[in-house]
Amino acid sequence: MAQFNDLLLPHGRTELCNSVLPGLLDCIADIAKSLRQSQHVSLAGTTNIFGDGQLNVDIAAENLLRAALAKCPSVLTASSEEEPIERSARDGETAENVSAGSEKYTVAFDPLDGSSIIAPNWTVGTIIGIWDGSSAIHQQPSEKQIASILGVYGPRTTAIVALKVPGGKPQCLEIGIGESGQDHEIIRSDVKLADAPFKTRYFAPANLRAAAESPAYMRLITQYVEKKYTLRYSGGLVPDVVHALVKGHGVYLSPVTGASEAKLRRLYELFPVALIVECAGGRAIDPSNGEDILSRPLENCDERAGLICGTAEEVEIVKKALLGQ
Amino acid sequence: MAQFNDLLLPHGRTELCNSVLPGLLDCIADIAKSLRQSQHVSLAGTTNIFGDGQLNVDIAAENLLRAALAKCPSVLTASSEEEPIERSARDGETAENVSAGSEKYTVAFDPLDGSSIIAPNWTVGTIIGIWDGSSAIHQQPSEKQIASILGVYGPRTTAIVALKVPGGKPQCLEIGIGESGQDHEIIRSDVKLADAPFKTRYFAPANLRAAAESPAYMRLITQYVEKKYTLRYSGGLVPDVVHALVKGHGVYLSPVTGASEAKLRRLYELFPVALIVECAGGRAIDPSNGEDILSRPLENCDERAGLICGTAEEVEIVKKALLGQ
Repeated sequence: MAQFNDLLLPHGRTELCNSVLPGLLDCIADIAKSLRQSQHVSLAGTTNIFGDGQLNVDIAAENLLRAALAKCPSVLTASSEEEPIERSARDGETAENVSAGSEKYTVAFDPLDGSSIIAPNWTVGTIIGIWDGSSAIHQQPSEKQIASILGVYGPRTTAIVALKVPGGKPQCLEIGIGESGQDHEIIRSDVKLADAPFKTRYFAPANLRAAAESPAYMRLITQYVEKKYTLRYSGGLVPDVVHALVKGHGVYLSPVTGASEAKLRRLYELFPVALIVECAGGRAIDPSNGEDILSRPLENCDERAGLICGTAEEVEIVKKALLGQ
Repeated sequence: MAQFNDLLLPHGRTELCNSVLPGLLDCIADIAKSLRQSQHVSLAGTTNIFGDGQLNVDIAAENLLRAALAKCPSVLTASSEEEPIERSARDGETAENVSAGSEKYTVAFDPLDGSSIIAPNWTVGTIIGIWDGSSAIHQQPSEKQIASILGVYGPRTTAIVALKVPGGKPQCLEIGIGESGQDHEIIRSDVKLADAPFKTRYFAPANLRAAAESPAYMRLITQYVEKKYTLRYSGGLVPDVVHALVKGHGVYLSPVTGASEAKLRRLYELFPVALIVECAGGRAIDPSNGEDILSRPLENCDERAGLICGTAEEVEIVKKALLGQ
């Protein structure tokens, strides 16, 4: 496809346009191929640091992404949900001794999100955040995370890409991923969460069991039913968020209650998703305090939180319902 | 893969084993390929007889299935959700003047179920029922529908196949569909909805808006939340049913209320799904009267009904809750 040169990025982003973004999209094509050939989805016999059972396909996706990033000289640092420690993108290097050009990036990724729905062959995804500089820790997410990608593995392979490069206009694109780099194409150059009125209103209530302990959450669910919202909830963060982006409407809720802890990783899941939702004109907030997901820097790689995101109007309704704000 | 000879079918089913089933599985591989290459999912500018907008991918799947069936001499009659009239599987023939062997089949199919979730790239499916004889109308479904297939188009391509051939043991298998016929393989030869206790209980509430008018449905939803069932609802009948089959537990509910009409086609959706669920040890009933989906013959091709299916114990709970039986 057209290199990312077409995307009206500010000068000085040659590596981002010609190496990092194309390399990651090609890697999404490779992960799709690997998934297509993995009829035997099994536990790999290991657990990641969070105690989740790792699937053989998780490990394959992790290895493909690490290899793709190692080929991008401007990517100094990489970390993943499977190994949440920032380290050099190339073995034997330290972030400090790399003689890189003027562009320096950190990439944080969840190689394969949606483990629980891989066996039944539901759509799953890859989540990637790209940061300016050699670390994401203690950096202001709203300024330093300059791009993010959701890879979507379903009947076809697609990707949603958000770009918010300083000096440039925020953009959100949908890309059709081909078998090889030449075949990728921009399907929509302006992914937008639309304004009211909506033909159909969608809701995706994650962690619905929390409604048993949260009367506010239960009331909200009842209200969606009474107002005839349409339910779509796959349990995969990528397909659930992408559903709203493609339909132009939707709200995703993963509240946090006393009895149910926050599960979504800020660095590997929430930040990239929030950037995409914001670049599409929506909002992404923390249900514990109503603040924007991208407003608070990270202290360490495995911090977690809840999420409310989607159309700005719907997020506001949820905020009022759950926080009384 | 091994021809279906291995499947312990009674004698006299050579065409079913060597032509119909392999031909349909190859066709599922072809539909998967067509979907993978259809980055531009658009309305084809036509509507089917039900007034649904037809997508270009619907038409491609319909054409691939019609072509595959035309190559099976034992398939006399075909009809599809897109064109719900029984007619000869080969143009220019009538079902009566075909000089077929001793095996005679009718095939009814929904070429691509889940139109609303194709654009966001969620898993969708094909639904196929295979009947003994030259028509499905006025036939006893529990006896005459002898096989059914759910094709599943997700990150990989899979199929669930149920066989209930007179004289043989009912079977339910999961098949990994390769790029070509040689690559198909049996992933699980005994797909089973398990017995209690369950690690996790799943529910998939279709037509949830109906709960606004049905206090019984709303109470049932509240009860699932209170009992901490896990919600998984994609809105695609194939992925929703396959989720339960792969996890070994689940209940799918599409109730019918005064304000919301029955939407699922008996011939193209309910009968094939019911056969698969029953062959996996589960139950599939009509929510309007509690009767087994497969108990009542078809009067015409476009009859519709609701559905409750899944683990027998869960179906019983829903029946009591909605019908008081």
